[in-house]
Amino acid sequence: MNFINLNCPPLPYFIVGGGCVYRPGDIHERRTIRNVFDLIYVHSGTLYLEQDPFRVELNAGQFFIITPDTPHRGSRVCQEKTTTSWVHFYTNGKYSLSDEFYPDNITRRAAPKFYYSPQNFILSLPRTGTVPEANREKLEKYLQRMNLVSFSKYTQKKSFPSSVRTPFEIQNDFIEFLQVLYAPYCYSREKESIARTLRDYLDAHYTEEISLNDLARQYSYSPSHLIRSFHQAYGASPMQYLKKLRIEHASQLLLHSDAAIQSVGEMVGLRIPSYFIRVFKQEIGITPAQYRMFYAEENGGSETP
Amino acid sequence: MNFINLNCPPLPYFIVGGGCVYRPGDIHERRTIRNVFDLIYVHSGTLYLEQDPFRVELNAGQFFIITPDTPHRGSRVCQEKTTTSWVHFYTNGKYSLSDEFYPDNITRRAAPKFYYSPQNFILSLPRTGTVPEANREKLEKYLQRMNLVSFSKYTQKKSFPSSVRTPFEIQNDFIEFLQVLYAPYCYSREKESIARTLRDYLDAHYTEEISLNDLARQYSYSPSHLIRSFHQAYGASPMQYLKKLRIEHASQLLLHSDAAIQSVGEMVGLRIPSYFIRVFKQEIGITPAQYRMFYAEENGGSETP
Repeated sequence: MNFINLNCPPLPYFIVGGGCVYRPGDIHERRTIRNVFDLIYVHSGTLYLEQDPFRVELNAGQFFIITPDTPHRGSRVCQEKTTTSWVHFYTNGKYSLSDEFYPDNITRRAAPKFYYSPQNFILSLPRTGTVPEANREKLEKYLQRMNLVSFSKYTQKKSFPSSVRTPFEIQNDFIEFLQVLYAPYCYSREKESIARTLRDYLDAHYTEEISLNDLARQYSYSPSHLIRSFHQAYGASPMQYLKKLRIEHASQLLLHSDAAIQSVGEMVGLRIPSYFIRVFKQEIGITPAQYRMFYAEENGGSETP
Repeated sequence: MNFINLNCPPLPYFIVGGGCVYRPGDIHERRTIRNVFDLIYVHSGTLYLEQDPFRVELNAGQFFIITPDTPHRGSRVCQEKTTTSWVHFYTNGKYSLSDEFYPDNITRRAAPKFYYSPQNFILSLPRTGTVPEANREKLEKYLQRMNLVSFSKYTQKKSFPSSVRTPFEIQNDFIEFLQVLYAPYCYSREKESIARTLRDYLDAHYTEEISLNDLARQYSYSPSHLIRSFHQAYGASPMQYLKKLRIEHASQLLLHSDAAIQSVGEMVGLRIPSYFIRVFKQEIGITPAQYRMFYAEENGGSETP
């Protein structure tokens, strides 16, 4: 269970952030925090943490996210001066855990049904990891901005860095911060695969007949490798993606052309009318004819705002 | 009712964004959008809009936010080529309208009760306004990134700019975008007043006896001017702010020192014990003694994560 998958909306929400400096011999407290995620990031030194079944040794640039309601504690005293930041955040939404990064990288194109209701997505955060060297300065800048309470075990004193940032700015900082944490996972998947090439091909050729076997032949990969790569990058198979793409274009044509239902199907590469209607209904919930009628009425023939 | 005040959490959530180019003689549709805010921004030309009781003429760099469920329409045809962007967003939370900017600029310091639950705040967005010249490039960059569907009245064609941004990145763009819109309102209030100076003074001198009349004398303003300025900037009076500040420091001292309750009161400038206890209870809900006991137990004597 290496990834924490937050269902959005709502977006995760920042509660408070701070810093703590440990002396050699100090140890992280044993505790359980209700309803709150606790992210710990190490600037320098090494922090030893345990949250069943994890036992981690966090060095500079590494982080760990403790899930709510789970006991955790230091597993070993610090061997040297160790400087850390922490961020408490929460979500009102559901979350789940998974072994693999849950990719949700496809921003849906704007089909009419998406104009008026939010597109849910999964934000998959690594439970622990190393922030790439190149991103640390940026990440630490956001941590600095969210640093509302600092504690030093040397002086046993708390300080409250006076913040001139407004509540909304700090939420903004937090979202940016998560973005920095999340981006490498998100993109490494896309880069290391042929998924992007494949997606561009589908975007350009969805009006034609396309089969998975043809794609496999064209790119000299096995069908299963294509499916795996595409799924890793985008969270869907190439054919699932193609289906969505076609239906989205079809829905546009239904509203912005007078083409017959059957022609619309043809124009998006779904040549068999009954199949087109079935797929459309699967995706959108109503038939193409109902869709045209419903949206044309509601929006006076155009959904352009 | 010039401001739209969103209760956060949750943060407002992006649905879809796009662009529309109007020809001379074109007019914005008459429509009502359910549950969705519709923000319109003009890049060039002029768009004429009406949403009872507003009638606006939007020029380059100006925007208008249409609230959900309210009929609106173009009030006049475009006189020249007019290029616009629009953003649909929504919130699951409540919102209200007000004539004045609702300032909520104080980021609470991290008192223990704030470690584990979100701090609600109000995000006050101007319903209409002009984006300062200096911010337009930045704002338009975010609009560009959120542009998922473009429509031109010249060609009567929709296009779907292929986005390589993930759903989370686009939410991030949207929050940044709102920040750019919101920041000038937020800060102009603070800058044009002596509020900041006053706040710094309170932060430094809260351990001393402070009265509003003394402050007024010291800064050569009337007490009511001080209250008004401070309230405009931070949404609270100076004495309300001072009270919060003192109680937050007191709560820290209760947990991290062995000082008697009475001494704690003295250390934060509340010298009369019964008054200290009353104020503490007002703010935190329990007495200082209960507080010390309760949090000391729960967090093993320390709430440092």
